[in-house]
Amino acid sequence: MKQAGSATLLFERRPYVLSAASVAGKAEEKGPYGHVFDEIMEDDRLGEKTFEQGERKMLLKALHRTVDRVNLPMAEAGCLLAGDLLNQIVTASYAARELEIPYLGLYGACSTMTEALLLGAALVDGGYRDRALCAACSHFSTAERQYRFPLEMGTTAPPSAQRTVTGAGAVLLGAAPLPQAGFHHVRLEAATMGRVRDLGITDANNMGAAMAPAACDTILRHLKDRGMSEGDFDWIVTGDLGDFGSRMLRELCLEASLDMEDRHLDCGSMIYSPEQNYNCRGSGCGCSAVMLAGYVLPQLEKGAVKRVLFLSTGALMSPLSACQGESIPGIAHAICLVYQE
Amino acid sequence: MKQAGSATLLFERRPYVLSAASVAGKAEEKGPYGHVFDEIMEDDRLGEKTFEQGERKMLLKALHRTVDRVNLPMAEAGCLLAGDLLNQIVTASYAARELEIPYLGLYGACSTMTEALLLGAALVDGGYRDRALCAACSHFSTAERQYRFPLEMGTTAPPSAQRTVTGAGAVLLGAAPLPQAGFHHVRLEAATMGRVRDLGITDANNMGAAMAPAACDTILRHLKDRGMSEGDFDWIVTGDLGDFGSRMLRELCLEASLDMEDRHLDCGSMIYSPEQNYNCRGSGCGCSAVMLAGYVLPQLEKGAVKRVLFLSTGALMSPLSACQGESIPGIAHAICLVYQE
Repeated sequence: MKQAGSATLLFERRPYVLSAASVAGKAEEKGPYGHVFDEIMEDDRLGEKTFEQGERKMLLKALHRTVDRVNLPMAEAGCLLAGDLLNQIVTASYAARELEIPYLGLYGACSTMTEALLLGAALVDGGYRDRALCAACSHFSTAERQYRFPLEMGTTAPPSAQRTVTGAGAVLLGAAPLPQAGFHHVRLEAATMGRVRDLGITDANNMGAAMAPAACDTILRHLKDRGMSEGDFDWIVTGDLGDFGSRMLRELCLEASLDMEDRHLDCGSMIYSPEQNYNCRGSGCGCSAVMLAGYVLPQLEKGAVKRVLFLSTGALMSPLSACQGESIPGIAHAICLVYQE
Repeated sequence: MKQAGSATLLFERRPYVLSAASVAGKAEEKGPYGHVFDEIMEDDRLGEKTFEQGERKMLLKALHRTVDRVNLPMAEAGCLLAGDLLNQIVTASYAARELEIPYLGLYGACSTMTEALLLGAALVDGGYRDRALCAACSHFSTAERQYRFPLEMGTTAPPSAQRTVTGAGAVLLGAAPLPQAGFHHVRLEAATMGRVRDLGITDANNMGAAMAPAACDTILRHLKDRGMSEGDFDWIVTGDLGDFGSRMLRELCLEASLDMEDRHLDCGSMIYSPEQNYNCRGSGCGCSAVMLAGYVLPQLEKGAVKRVLFLSTGALMSPLSACQGESIPGIAHAICLVYQE
């Protein structure tokens, strides 16, 4: 059986996490997890002319680091599944242009990292690829000018707002272990595809609230599809709900009799410290991507946690849909990572 | 063996095409294939307030028609893999909000239809889903204002320009046949993931030329990966290269000793007649989606052709990347469809 319930994929061969890498910005370096990222960008543009070109270079750095780390040529990475927040996901597509491997572009807003891992794991577990390179990224400066206001305007953010993380994370999955791999004990056991949920939130400065119902839905379905309970997981990690969205998620779960207070982590809340004054803290595709690559996977590798449900969470609106009065639909895809001797 | 060469997936169970549907606009109705589409939109907005809401409704119509046609509830469609051309693929995401099934958002520009089918087929063939609903759409009026100029400006197009097709196409794949299915003889045998190719074209009014190298690359690799030749295919169909791009593709293939003059079709060139004066004719995700659902699949079903290599072709730039002086990267994903008794 490789399918469970309405939305869960069971990976019989349990694809291996072979390698991972993260590149992040200065604001992320100053947060509590600044030391876990592989590389910090001294310059937001990485020496390029535009922020967009800098973002692309950041993603390429993460991709190359991930593959170089296991001494493989890029051609051995199988294929790239990636996405970002820019219109037409130009960061991922132009980065893919620099690589000679097949490319599947994804858009799941901030849910992209787990969408990529879910599909990459299916390709590897299904025997269609020996390896798959999965990645996502976001950049504060490119996101601000596309979604909100040009930085030069110096607008202030309301209390529920979150800051888009500048960061790129990549993970290389494989059907077989590699002696030279950075990881030997982390496997993908299952994944759950998200459904779009919308409780009618229209405030684009409160995305955490828009995404929390989707996260709740996916967590409940993952547990139900697999006949498991919250106690089977050491951690349930969400991508970028932020402080407000995280509280809302826990309340929504409690209403469904799921108490995960003592095992819930949110990458968005973790990545910045309260002293950094970023309101409800971090968001963006890059947020869950760098926290997964830099923190969650290494914790699993050393056995500090044995089973983790990891969900990147996305808000699927656009500036245009917001202008047309639409509410913000959310989505969350989950992957289940396990420690294995 | 479920993988071949550097980019090809072999589907051992050969997923079934169970159903398909197409919805198109008035300009498409006036073209040579106007009679093959399931529904023609009398009104570009389908009674909605904005073109974008009309586009969404069009996609929903195609999705519901596809599933209704086989008398299944939407919940039995497995999952939706879909994308479109709007920023943050809001058409697909807001359409998915109306459905209660898992959703995986894709962005491959006009290559989205075959990207969806490739991934949907892998999920079905791999045993992760019993069915998968794959779709793509585009809309002339929403694309013009996002990528070019508001229609109200009345700008004229240069000779190499193509018109974005107003249309939505959907295909339901299944692991097993259904007695009530509309199709009984069309199976997916293999697929090849595209690589990003860029020969340095910077003219956003000449996307066919930007995509032709990618189509050539994917065709050559599909044949090489499977040890096949052009003679093994009755048709090699490209998505929306248009007249200029099609000529370029045939020349590029000839340089690689592949003569496909007598078996190449291009949906973009087919969908409009020369009398419609749309320069190099059709483009857009919806172009290959409606021609696949409305024409290619029915021809396979009745055995008029026995094996077809079908490639949707995408130009991965954005208005911003064009402003920043970037050239236009192209991509093409291929699926191999076969007639089976």
